[in-house]
Amino acid sequence: MREVFQQELREVQDRLVEIAGLVAESIENATRAFNESDVTLAETVIANDPQIDALATELDELAINILARQQPVARDLRIVVSALRISASLERMGDMAEHIAQLARYRFPDKVVPKNLRGTFVEMGRLDVEIAKKLTELLRTQDTDIAEDIRNEDDKIDDLHLSVFDKVLGEKWKGEAVDTVDATLASRYHERFADHAVSIAKKVMYLATGDWVPDEA
Amino acid sequence: MREVFQQELREVQDRLVEIAGLVAESIENATRAFNESDVTLAETVIANDPQIDALATELDELAINILARQQPVARDLRIVVSALRISASLERMGDMAEHIAQLARYRFPDKVVPKNLRGTFVEMGRLDVEIAKKLTELLRTQDTDIAEDIRNEDDKIDDLHLSVFDKVLGEKWKGEAVDTVDATLASRYHERFADHAVSIAKKVMYLATGDWVPDEA
Repeated sequence: MREVFQQELREVQDRLVEIAGLVAESIENATRAFNESDVTLAETVIANDPQIDALATELDELAINILARQQPVARDLRIVVSALRISASLERMGDMAEHIAQLARYRFPDKVVPKNLRGTFVEMGRLDVEIAKKLTELLRTQDTDIAEDIRNEDDKIDDLHLSVFDKVLGEKWKGEAVDTVDATLASRYHERFADHAVSIAKKVMYLATGDWVPDEA
Repeated sequence: MREVFQQELREVQDRLVEIAGLVAESIENATRAFNESDVTLAETVIANDPQIDALATELDELAINILARQQPVARDLRIVVSALRISASLERMGDMAEHIAQLARYRFPDKVVPKNLRGTFVEMGRLDVEIAKKLTELLRTQDTDIAEDIRNEDDKIDDLHLSVFDKVLGEKWKGEAVDTVDATLASRYHERFADHAVSIAKKVMYLATGDWVPDEA
């Protein structure tokens, strides 16, 4: 019984890694589509999001079935509950990538953000992609150093997020309302994407160290 | 055993109702603070949010303990899992109310939105408050008609959300960048608040009807 349970936990882990890999692909394509105004790539991201949603739902079903059949307690129970929460956060990360792609599609053939913010968004996108790749690795290895990296990169994204508002609200800003709206939304989506990754990293650290952290989005 | 379990489920339900009541109070104060530039009220909302977070965490602990001790299966198990998800959504609704209050505080003593959008935000705020009150009632009574009302009101909020962008991107918009940023963020927070309520309403409907719905944020 115990061995079956361990095997099922590995199955849960494998599926989380799989979903995280798709999310990483999604944010990589979304940020490229956003920065290069590639509408075809944007549409690919949008078309692929339901797959992430479906896999997250299937994972939830598996986790609930494990709870029903294996009746885990103590730490084992918390691992399965964590998996449910991680899957919800991954699903939201996929949504954020989709929203970024939608902005690229709406404004096509124009670029989404004006020139003086492009460098900032390229950097935010790069960090989000790196975070997503590290998250996949973290879910696979449960290496606590990676969790620390993710947290540091999230700090950088928070700084960039604030710098977007500094620019948009600064005297030199010449953007029109549409540029301001897009920069505001895009910056928020990039930042939320990283927040979810940090929230997952904390939960994975629980799996590795036994320190339970309360749920947070 | 079965009776103890039913009693514990009632305890879970009572706590969800309690948290939803606090969220309703929070959005009522936040939208008033936002529309009337009441910085004291905004600070009250911000100061009270940790209480909502703490109650949600306590509820999660209770739900996990119920899973461990009662080992529910089938529908009973899904009810407890639903409670975990509902608590996460309520916690996020509290965050959205806090974000709205923060906008009011940042811009004080100025009003957050320019004149020609004030009526729209008063209406969005009114709908969010109504939705939160109905949600509390729904959690208490599991009356399916209330769930339907919440969905209809969310549709109205979605329309208002789109109308904000129509105005901001329209030719008549005279707002400065700061007005555009605030209107964009405020509209998004109002809309997300209602989305979470709809997501909860779907889960409560499961508790009432047995139709399981996948998790969604």
